[in-house]
Amino acid sequence: MSAENLKAEIARRYGTPAVVIDLEIVERNIARAQALCDAAGVAFRPHIKTHKSPALAQMQRSAGAAGITCQKIGEAEVMAEGGLDEILIAYNILGEEKLGRLGKLLARAHITVAADNPVTIEGLPEAARIAGRPLDVVVECDTGRKRAGVETPGEAIELARTIAVAPGLAFAGFMFYPPDKGMAASQAFLNETIAGVRALGLDPRVVSSGGTPNLSQLERLEGVTEHRAGTYIFNDRMMMNHGMATLEDCALHVYATVVSRAGAGRGVLDSGSKTLTVDTGGGLDGFGLIREYPQARIAGFAEEHGLLDLQRSNDRPPVGTVVRIVPNHVCVVVNMVDTLIAVRGDEIVGELSVAARGKIT
Amino acid sequence: MSAENLKAEIARRYGTPAVVIDLEIVERNIARAQALCDAAGVAFRPHIKTHKSPALAQMQRSAGAAGITCQKIGEAEVMAEGGLDEILIAYNILGEEKLGRLGKLLARAHITVAADNPVTIEGLPEAARIAGRPLDVVVECDTGRKRAGVETPGEAIELARTIAVAPGLAFAGFMFYPPDKGMAASQAFLNETIAGVRALGLDPRVVSSGGTPNLSQLERLEGVTEHRAGTYIFNDRMMMNHGMATLEDCALHVYATVVSRAGAGRGVLDSGSKTLTVDTGGGLDGFGLIREYPQARIAGFAEEHGLLDLQRSNDRPPVGTVVRIVPNHVCVVVNMVDTLIAVRGDEIVGELSVAARGKIT
Repeated sequence: MSAENLKAEIARRYGTPAVVIDLEIVERNIARAQALCDAAGVAFRPHIKTHKSPALAQMQRSAGAAGITCQKIGEAEVMAEGGLDEILIAYNILGEEKLGRLGKLLARAHITVAADNPVTIEGLPEAARIAGRPLDVVVECDTGRKRAGVETPGEAIELARTIAVAPGLAFAGFMFYPPDKGMAASQAFLNETIAGVRALGLDPRVVSSGGTPNLSQLERLEGVTEHRAGTYIFNDRMMMNHGMATLEDCALHVYATVVSRAGAGRGVLDSGSKTLTVDTGGGLDGFGLIREYPQARIAGFAEEHGLLDLQRSNDRPPVGTVVRIVPNHVCVVVNMVDTLIAVRGDEIVGELSVAARGKIT
Repeated sequence: MSAENLKAEIARRYGTPAVVIDLEIVERNIARAQALCDAAGVAFRPHIKTHKSPALAQMQRSAGAAGITCQKIGEAEVMAEGGLDEILIAYNILGEEKLGRLGKLLARAHITVAADNPVTIEGLPEAARIAGRPLDVVVECDTGRKRAGVETPGEAIELARTIAVAPGLAFAGFMFYPPDKGMAASQAFLNETIAGVRALGLDPRVVSSGGTPNLSQLERLEGVTEHRAGTYIFNDRMMMNHGMATLEDCALHVYATVVSRAGAGRGVLDSGSKTLTVDTGGGLDGFGLIREYPQARIAGFAEEHGLLDLQRSNDRPPVGTVVRIVPNHVCVVVNMVDTLIAVRGDEIVGELSVAARGKIT
């Protein structure tokens, strides 16, 4: 089957928009990231937020990953159900409802959680009590991204001590997400923090770094034991912009149909913000790259309309044309759909459930 | 139960984030919009894209709506399954897969579709053939929004003629979505178009206008027979900004927990772009209004983190606080979850399935 025939077949079988992944590229991306971690001597713990599919997580594990990363308990529950048993939930888990679920999960799989404050740590022993086994906790550190995490080594050391003395909790180490251009500051933070806990007699078994872009500079941080990354499995325009992927490394496309040509220099796709999302990918121009019409700009959205600016495009697709779009940010696009269509090259080979989609708690 | 107790109960039963609607406010919003349409003498055809729930569509119908509007066939299929039988699919339907589904749908419910180009019209007779009954088609007109729709009365009249002579199709009229400040231009477009088709001996039975903001100026357009609106059922910050709603009219809140205080002037919510979405609501400041901390700014997101800027907020929520957020744009938030929690005032009364969520084709 040719690429054109594949498009026609996907439109015929599933209709558009359809979210399609090429397993050949997926496997290549998985192998490449694993090889980078292997070469740097750090364990790899892929983040499943990108694909939310136990089947793909199993592929990552089979290729050598030491475990997986989830963001929410609901994601971890789906992964445990799918047979994954070594899970970092990179999140502050709070509240009776979540601690109960965490306890049940801990009873069946090895779970590590993150904490960046004493209130979180105060609640976690309840989960360990329910599970009847200790819960590993890493301290989340912020070395410059200004998201979650303590901002100073002193706070990190203090929380490590709090974890170590809490009933049912085991201090496991540290987790952070270095800013793209903050390796020196991250290293200084790590050095001071690791030395600080060692002086207290604590062992930071896990020092977990993260980010697909940082896969290219794993060797720049000393003391890191594992790396988390998600987007690399599919890649997207954002990763291309970071220099982490070429078009040939983009495994996921949104297949869409031109449903209107509106004005002469305009067009309308059947994929709007409820499929492609308004994620700018950190300030990219337009909301996706159309493979067949790279000069066409996805200029904006209605909820179910993609608004094409064709003024700079010499080729202009007629109504009915099916196109393939590389989205700005794959993680949020996958999250919009229940099913990924799997192909190998030009052959449809099956469907994958986005089983953890919508698991926001 | 008090509002504080309700928050605690929702967190205890469901965990956060949770998307909660107050049925008392929903019913008031439904009644108010219906009354505006009744007073203006136009039929009301609510757009279900906002709630995607057959149960809420039935409430709209029971309150007097003449039918409903959907954007995708998948939405219409869910609504027909839920007993709704008078449906406008406000979209160009193209391609074998969709025309087959449209035919099946037409066999069981009264369906009208929109078209703005000859390619779409050429395909539609296949759906009528499958159903064994005629398909009503309205011409989509663009009176200034620059989305889908023909841009001139001449094109609209020409398409009306094309529909009228196509086998199995019935020309039903026109559909448009007037720009907020484009009533005079829209009226001129309508007048010329309506006169044009009448001169051909065609009857524009349906002249369908749209938009929640335009509910306040229904009387400004002559010749309109029906109005479509979606957001009014829940309202949001965008509708408040349009002057179409007050805080008391906002029926939907995202309940979220403060999971980290990060830096002194910062905080982190457990609701990120995968719940609240990065929709700016047309340029609003921040990504939602926190009822309890109106000076706190939801400044940005990670996928599962809401990043709070608390610098201008005198009150700063401690870790563990549950807050209620009015989102910028409810339609895209509802689309992220499978279930809405229904309350009346301070009592939990049930759950509603967002049954048409993810029905993107």
